Amino acid sequence: MFLPRKILEMKLLALLAEDSGQGDITTDLVIPSNSTSNASIIAREAGVIAGIEEISVLLSSSGLRNRSLIADGSTVKAEQRILEIQGDTRTILSIERTALNIMSRMSGIATKTRRLKDELREAKLNTVLACTRKTAPGLGFFDKKAVFLGGGDTHRLHLDDLILIKDNHVAAAGNIGKALRKVKLRASFSKKIEIEVATLQDALGAAKLGVDIILLDNFKPGQIRKTVKTLEKEGLRRRVMLEASGGITSQNLLVFASTGVDIVSLGELTSNTKSLDLSLEILRT
Amino acid sequence: MFLPRKILEMKLLALLAEDSGQGDITTDLVIPSNSTSNASIIAREAGVIAGIEEISVLLSSSGLRNRSLIADGSTVKAEQRILEIQGDTRTILSIERTALNIMSRMSGIATKTRRLKDELREAKLNTVLACTRKTAPGLGFFDKKAVFLGGGDTHRLHLDDLILIKDNHVAAAGNIGKALRKVKLRASFSKKIEIEVATLQDALGAAKLGVDIILLDNFKPGQIRKTVKTLEKEGLRRRVMLEASGGITSQNLLVFASTGVDIVSLGELTSNTKSLDLSLEILRT
Amino acid sequence: MFLPRKILEMKLLALLAEDSGQGDITTDLVIPSNSTSNASIIAREAGVIAGIEEISVLLSSSGLRNRSLIADGSTVKAEQRILEIQGDTRTILSIERTALNIMSRMSGIATKTRRLKDELREAKLNTVLACTRKTAPGLGFFDKKAVFLGGGDTHRLHLDDLILIKDNHVAAAGNIGKALRKVKLRASFSKKIEIEVATLQDALGAAKLGVDIILLDNFKPGQIRKTVKTLEKEGLRRRVMLEASGGITSQNLLVFASTGVDIVSLGELTSNTKSLDLSLEILRT
Amino acid sequence: MFLPRKILEMKLLALLAEDSGQGDITTDLVIPSNSTSNASIIAREAGVIAGIEEISVLLSSSGLRNRSLIADGSTVKAEQRILEIQGDTRTILSIERTALNIMSRMSGIATKTRRLKDELREAKLNTVLACTRKTAPGLGFFDKKAVFLGGGDTHRLHLDDLILIKDNHVAAAGNIGKALRKVKLRASFSKKIEIEVATLQDALGAAKLGVDIILLDNFKPGQIRKTVKTLEKEGLRRRVMLEASGGITSQNLLVFASTGVDIVSLGELTSNTKSLDLSLEILRT
Amino acid sequence: MFLPRKILEMKLLALLAEDSGQGDITTDLVIPSNSTSNASIIAREAGVIAGIEEISVLLSSSGLRNRSLIADGSTVKAEQRILEIQGDTRTILSIERTALNIMSRMSGIATKTRRLKDELREAKLNTVLACTRKTAPGLGFFDKKAVFLGGGDTHRLHLDDLILIKDNHVAAAGNIGKALRKVKLRASFSKKIEIEVATLQDALGAAKLGVDIILLDNFKPGQIRKTVKTLEKEGLRRRVMLEASGGITSQNLLVFASTGVDIVSLGELTSNTKSLDLSLEILRT
Amino acid sequence: MFLPRKILEMKLLALLAEDSGQGDITTDLVIPSNSTSNASIIAREAGVIAGIEEISVLLSSSGLRNRSLIADGSTVKAEQRILEIQGDTRTILSIERTALNIMSRMSGIATKTRRLKDELREAKLNTVLACTRKTAPGLGFFDKKAVFLGGGDTHRLHLDDLILIKDNHVAAAGNIGKALRKVKLRASFSKKIEIEVATLQDALGAAKLGVDIILLDNFKPGQIRKTVKTLEKEGLRRRVMLEASGGITSQNLLVFASTGVDIVSLGELTSNTKSLDLSLEILRT
Repeated sequence: MFLPRKILEMKLLALLAEDSGQGDITTDLVIPSNSTSNASIIAREAGVIAGIEEISVLLSSSGLRNRSLIADGSTVKAEQRILEIQGDTRTILSIERTALNIMSRMSGIATKTRRLKDELREAKLNTVLACTRKTAPGLGFFDKKAVFLGGGDTHRLHLDDLILIKDNHVAAAGNIGKALRKVKLRASFSKKIEIEVATLQDALGAAKLGVDIILLDNFKPGQIRKTVKTLEKEGLRRRVMLEASGGITSQNLLVFASTGVDIVSLGELTSNTKSLDLSLEILRT
Repeated sequence: MFLPRKILEMKLLALLAEDSGQGDITTDLVIPSNSTSNASIIAREAGVIAGIEEISVLLSSSGLRNRSLIADGSTVKAEQRILEIQGDTRTILSIERTALNIMSRMSGIATKTRRLKDELREAKLNTVLACTRKTAPGLGFFDKKAVFLGGGDTHRLHLDDLILIKDNHVAAAGNIGKALRKVKLRASFSKKIEIEVATLQDALGAAKLGVDIILLDNFKPGQIRKTVKTLEKEGLRRRVMLEASGGITSQNLLVFASTGVDIVSLGELTSNTKSLDLSLEILRT
Repeated sequence: MFLPRKILEMKLLALLAEDSGQGDITTDLVIPSNSTSNASIIAREAGVIAGIEEISVLLSSSGLRNRSLIADGSTVKAEQRILEIQGDTRTILSIERTALNIMSRMSGIATKTRRLKDELREAKLNTVLACTRKTAPGLGFFDKKAVFLGGGDTHRLHLDDLILIKDNHVAAAGNIGKALRKVKLRASFSKKIEIEVATLQDALGAAKLGVDIILLDNFKPGQIRKTVKTLEKEGLRRRVMLEASGGITSQNLLVFASTGVDIVSLGELTSNTKSLDLSLEILRT
Repeated sequence: MFLPRKILEMKLLALLAEDSGQGDITTDLVIPSNSTSNASIIAREAGVIAGIEEISVLLSSSGLRNRSLIADGSTVKAEQRILEIQGDTRTILSIERTALNIMSRMSGIATKTRRLKDELREAKLNTVLACTRKTAPGLGFFDKKAVFLGGGDTHRLHLDDLILIKDNHVAAAGNIGKALRKVKLRASFSKKIEIEVATLQDALGAAKLGVDIILLDNFKPGQIRKTVKTLEKEGLRRRVMLEASGGITSQNLLVFASTGVDIVSLGELTSNTKSLDLSLEILRT
Repeated sequence: MFLPRKILEMKLLALLAEDSGQGDITTDLVIPSNSTSNASIIAREAGVIAGIEEISVLLSSSGLRNRSLIADGSTVKAEQRILEIQGDTRTILSIERTALNIMSRMSGIATKTRRLKDELREAKLNTVLACTRKTAPGLGFFDKKAVFLGGGDTHRLHLDDLILIKDNHVAAAGNIGKALRKVKLRASFSKKIEIEVATLQDALGAAKLGVDIILLDNFKPGQIRKTVKTLEKEGLRRRVMLEASGGITSQNLLVFASTGVDIVSLGELTSNTKSLDLSLEILRT
Repeated sequence: MFLPRKILEMKLLALLAEDSGQGDITTDLVIPSNSTSNASIIAREAGVIAGIEEISVLLSSSGLRNRSLIADGSTVKAEQRILEIQGDTRTILSIERTALNIMSRMSGIATKTRRLKDELREAKLNTVLACTRKTAPGLGFFDKKAVFLGGGDTHRLHLDDLILIKDNHVAAAGNIGKALRKVKLRASFSKKIEIEVATLQDALGAAKLGVDIILLDNFKPGQIRKTVKTLEKEGLRRRVMLEASGGITSQNLLVFASTGVDIVSLGELTSNTKSLDLSLEILRT
């Protein structure tokens, strides 16, 4: 998800503009126009930091010098310094909240993702831990980049980068076979095809018809296990990837991940988020 | 926070565009261009619904007829229908996720706010429950509207609608007195003035110098009680509003709210959010 | 009204784009691409200069070095140099008109505001001189910043930073009491409440019900005086600020300002404007 | 200057967004969401109305029905109704100020232009009355359309629709001859060529070299007369149009217009503007 | 590539705005504001029509009724009518050129794609005919949709929907193995992996390491045949798709397509384009 | 067509954003964040280069140093280097395709224009070679600038910079005379007037009524010759410019150009385009 600097800057400035209104009236009245400061962004709790590239572009674009002390995706302890800033005090104060909001949200998502990924690792499971499109509205880029930095899988970035045939598509087409035929007729060779199924029967059918990924929607762990076994028995298991989705939470993650699926996906990674506590501290010069 | 329909539409379309990419390739391949459907948005868990106005504008702008069954801010039970939609199936499917993401986040925020507000009410406290500027980046409008619909206070909407002198401003000016003097000299009569203090002494000083609101930053409940009493003793209590902020969570809310302050503010309302579980169900026609 | 540099730059570039069309065809044909120049912006008449920050950001963003010789809000004499520019001649020529239009309008507004503020001062009146929302469409930020630099009060910056209950709101609610009750029930603690009244009776009522500011709409000077006295007699004068608005012009300003109100507001400051005569002079190198 | 409706709408919504901020908080609190109203826009003083097309597009785009009682460019008397509106009360109130600001500015410009044009007509002069690029920044489209509706000439709309060689271009090229040669070598056949001159000598030279229009910059009326005569004597008068510019105001307009030039241009038409007094009156239903 | 109507409209209005400038001055002067017309878009030469959905959204958004007589992707003969339009004459005339430019370009691309696809079909080849990212700048969506409607494959829509490891990536990583290892470690399961190779040896290596698609870059037809055979001999042919790219033109297409590759891709489909000749004919009412 | 750097940058970034999606996923996975490279843009075939200014602004805006080895409008041989680039490898790779697409299209247009212009020159004809508004949608600026650099005439840049009365306008007005009268009554003095005619009779009529340019629409070469002669006979030839348009191609260009018209215009210059083959080669450091 590498974006040319200016394209990233445009995304970030749209976020900043929303908070700016007609300008920071307090700072304007209190801080002299020639005041400069040194400042640091500091973690108030331990976690995985994401958003350093974003904040760095945002600060630089407003003429603030800055230097990150750690890399995106690094773990920090409470009270650890993340980034040093130097420049116009009024600019620092008027950007502060937007910058912290971006990095806190991204770091919160990265931290949770990393914790769950670590749980999988400790359980000797190399199941892929994926997020879904249940992001904060408009923040798909930032939310998914945070999942990636935490060690998770970004799944679809847009509606255009994976063919994912869901229940509503199947229903409209009549059945799985008809939906797949329509797709295969004209889908670009460059895209994978995934299909959502609700029963073992459909999973078997889909595997036979040839898809890249089967999404087992709202399957109980037992059902998933049975599906995996049946596919193995039929010699179809290696042909497809299996994604379990629906009803998976940080609590029951290991149960689902140990069923033999390739991928577990959790909407919760981006829709049930706790921002990491960060703050910006100013040292006037 | 009433926005003319077209201005709200522009905000919503920016969110939709982010998810659309070069278009919904699955829907394009599977769903015929003349297919129409009836659909409903349904709550999968109980909560307070926010975002009906938003979703209605979003759907209408793409030519989908829609009718809300409840009003923004209403409580729903699990499996209750919220909104009915009628129109082009491909359009419904390609808007579905963005619409749900908006309403789920807003409803999650409104639900939490309402729960805490209810706790205050049951404790016979009419303390104002306010959010802060710790919103998802760029989503201040939606996050704060959700807090309002949940029964909370929106606090500052931008950096331009309340003069809030924080520690960094005070430090830059030298002391509270100097900072306030600068502000009073040129601040618009139309804005309230709030000042953040870290000690009882400063709270007292600020009250004497005349401000509209004093923010007691990271005060322990005991400190707050003492401050309230001291201000009462000095006859200054009625002149100012007192806001407690910092370290307040849904767990300790009642402790802080019962100290005698007018306002308690929690960043958590918008930075530690759990989206309400909603889904869109299609009934083909 | 301090905006982060890039947010201000975006506002300014929108203005520049409007004038650029598909490019400056004259400059393209006549001026060689490697020509550089020194230039100055010069006042052709005396006045108060506003817009230096804006022009500086605009010039710098296009790679032109520039140095202001005076500060925003300073007084200049006719033929005084304001700003020195150095860089690509074609860029200077293609930005010239937009830059002058911005600074001329802002300086014209600042000059008029300063003149009226000075009249008040000479009459020993410290009445606040406020503008209204009658700005050039879309130019609220620039017009109000110019009023501020001239010594005036910016009043509401948006529809979201002061609750101002006007006649139409009162009529919709039934009466002043009902309108105020609705507002007080849910208004954010962070906003002041102002109400527009048309009679002494209503002013009295509003003061009793508790509002921050009363707008005496289209009151004659005599009526205002009587209202002030009545409020004093009832012990209500100190509880509220009084704003006189409607029918006030630069001609009758002192009459209104000497009635005892706290604020006089004039739409004319931003809707009846004479741009200050400025020009850009090139010294080729 | 006919713009497709949606392109005009985009320009207008940008103006509306600037005033909206995070929404109209007063209207939100006081006016019920199902309230509808009839309203009228009324002239509070006599003048020429411009901006009806703009306001109509703006209102319609937000779902407000509206009907204009007069055509753009018509004269109205004080207290005459201009436009009738019907629809959602909250929408009307939150658009009111932006709509009035647009129409008031445009009508003020149209009124002044018409008055001066009428003065020329009464003096039996059919000199073209042109504006310049000295508009409010970013409002060139609206300002020039207003001049057109008032009976004036819009002059250049962008930097790309007329080749206008000014003093700085001439200086950079060396002299008038060299500048013209450069232009003629590559200028599009579709554009007229105008050149600014400071002396009779240069006017003569330019006419001989063949240009479409000569701008007599800051010529005194006597100088202009002499130039006209000299060109006539040399048989060059009919080959070129003559534009007088610089130092022309509403006061001395007739003196300049009676010198025999084809065009007089006044920056003042768009840079020294008095908005026409209009108001919006609501009749609740 | 199904886009919600409003998102498509925004893309189209950006194209229209570019051509509009400050408005259609001819139409404004000549056509009365209440004139309405019937008009048709007519093919002046035979071909495959693409862009009907686009033009329909563009026309409808400006209030013009319209009805398409054929479906997107249909073949037309010279002089066949494609679309009927009804509405405001001035609007029709000011949108005409932009609408025709969109549909002419898309139809030109679709026509060429269809012709080549038909040649493949006649030669009994079901090789995929793909375009590349060599589109007109900024027009990727429209160019690729036209290729799709012509029967071609859209290939990558963005830089984010297929992992395509090109020579520069391989060189930076050291060799194919290292590049692939890096990718496989963190690539999303939802994306296919394609790698560009320059020799048979590398193709073999890539197939063994496991990729989804191998791009044979600038291979001569003989080389491709040899590669296909070698992969078959090694039992690797069925594991990967093979794409031939570089040096393929409409002239030599069949030679390349008959080598046994799965996909041939031609930059020419979108970078060497001849717009289909269309015109808009007005029938005044 | 000189645009201030930042306005040009905004146009270019819009093109880049379209291709970027959520970011370059391949480059992100393979190229280390601290890798820097030297790269060159190289012509793979001979031609005229256009777009150097554009690419330079695009590269610089993303922090890539760059140096052009030739000037815009220069001729290059196959394998000649055009531009050298130095900087962050990931940035270079993610901008590469957009940059090449811009320069390839512009250079293809400039090359064709230059070739045709050279043919005219060799035939001793100094007829103006003009393009039309048949550009790629939204790319008018770039397409026309390329025509200019190739030696052609840009014709209208917008709908606002030349009054061009076409058949539909004439039909709406009734006849040529009526259309012209309407235009002359209110057209700005700053614009030329061109009228499209279909018969010698109308050409004659238009010349008598006084227009700047007559467009002979779809005239056969013989008809054009006859029109030229008739106008000469009537002493009207020198009063107007004559533009031949419709049915002119690179094949029959000389036939039309030698009829005695001043201007020949070809839609083909921008609607039947073959991008010049360019590539970007990386030299890692």
